[in-house]
Amino acid sequence: MKSIGVFDSGVGGLTVVRELIRQLPCEDIVYFGDTARVPYGIKSKETIIRFSIENILLLLKQDVKMICVACNTASSVALPVIRNHFRVPVVGVISPGVKEAVYATQNKRIGVIGTRGTISSRAYEIEIKRLDPGISVTAFSCPLFVPFAEEGWLQGKTVTEVARTYLAPLKKAGVDTVILGCTHYPLLKPVIKKIMGERIKLIDSAKQVALEVKNILSAEGSLNRKRKGKQRFFVSDNPEWFSGLAKRFLGQNVKNAKKVNNV
Amino acid sequence: MKSIGVFDSGVGGLTVVRELIRQLPCEDIVYFGDTARVPYGIKSKETIIRFSIENILLLLKQDVKMICVACNTASSVALPVIRNHFRVPVVGVISPGVKEAVYATQNKRIGVIGTRGTISSRAYEIEIKRLDPGISVTAFSCPLFVPFAEEGWLQGKTVTEVARTYLAPLKKAGVDTVILGCTHYPLLKPVIKKIMGERIKLIDSAKQVALEVKNILSAEGSLNRKRKGKQRFFVSDNPEWFSGLAKRFLGQNVKNAKKVNNV
Repeated sequence: MKSIGVFDSGVGGLTVVRELIRQLPCEDIVYFGDTARVPYGIKSKETIIRFSIENILLLLKQDVKMICVACNTASSVALPVIRNHFRVPVVGVISPGVKEAVYATQNKRIGVIGTRGTISSRAYEIEIKRLDPGISVTAFSCPLFVPFAEEGWLQGKTVTEVARTYLAPLKKAGVDTVILGCTHYPLLKPVIKKIMGERIKLIDSAKQVALEVKNILSAEGSLNRKRKGKQRFFVSDNPEWFSGLAKRFLGQNVKNAKKVNNV
Repeated sequence: MKSIGVFDSGVGGLTVVRELIRQLPCEDIVYFGDTARVPYGIKSKETIIRFSIENILLLLKQDVKMICVACNTASSVALPVIRNHFRVPVVGVISPGVKEAVYATQNKRIGVIGTRGTISSRAYEIEIKRLDPGISVTAFSCPLFVPFAEEGWLQGKTVTEVARTYLAPLKKAGVDTVILGCTHYPLLKPVIKKIMGERIKLIDSAKQVALEVKNILSAEGSLNRKRKGKQRFFVSDNPEWFSGLAKRFLGQNVKNAKKVNNV
């Protein structure tokens, strides 16, 4: 039975795994977190492409039937190249998130937040405009959100103050929908709501990504339906650190994270 | 004319280069910042050792006469192994900082702050106790300080609040001296002083490191005295990002940062 391969720069992609387990409970999942080179958000396009290709080669050795790039930075920057290189179907997180946001907005003003790499790629903006050129997009990077999420500083006046600063331009633009363009940001939903107001729609692409994975496997006739799926977790460094953080993102413990060399 | 080789995980080590230029203006310096794999502070001992060895091999190709490990995490974790492997003299940042702190403290209570890797290695504590077992050491990691320094959030209520939380145990312990055990932290001196009080002695090891480098070259008779030294900068990723941040750490612009592959 072939697995779904998922990679991210670190732990954030586990929010996608969580949703895959929920929607596709019979599928086996192989996850790779590139914890030796995390984070990707500040790195160059060329380097992110190289890392992504290496990660996919590693997953292909685990006999996967498709790849899910559960990292916004890698999806924004590397997806077109990856799709050119590999035969296996590849799903990123950008297009699923955009579909949901375009559906959700009522005033046609969407905000996007993400890492510096994601925002400067303009991948979200381009995809939104492709679906609906009439939508205005306000996109800003929030570099301190990842360290705050990883450190578990999810509420209190400090993170609120940081969020207030970062989100000011989105508030000013009057967006009614915000794409959380980084797999770490769902952890900060409460503080983002506090700043943006209770009625703001926060789009976390994980659900939509899982739905897209389901559609592809279904179209290819390779969905599993028989037995409960298993998950395996690989990291390029620090399996203990990964396991320690995993619960916050996956909603369950990871006991069997295994260190492998991807370079 | 052989150069002094300096490496760090990213830009922080430039605070050491700044001091080397000041104290040894005739020396050529080759700097390598491992920006493709930055940061090191959250990574495992094994991985930090591997990265450090690769960085040194890269510097050795540039014909260096000694190596300065301008990264607290790499110095804490990898120095003994590195010294075993290589013939070239290697200076880290731990022992020079400790010497200065032990000299500076009057109440024999020293605080140490650094990355998680540095603090959990207990390298500072062990070195302090070796020089003076009567000194009490209070050591804590401050993981958010690096992102704050790199983002340039060096003052204001947010970073003050973060510093207040991190430094509370040092204040409680009544330390009169704090070792800034991370090359990013000197940028946060004003806010650390604000929390710890104006009379606190903040030890930034760069000066002492440069002095140690001078002593070694002097003892080996390989000091240069003739002409103004040159600096060359190599990074494993993102020369623009590096150059953009460099001025904050080096005190002058870096125009010629060159990308090289270290893996």
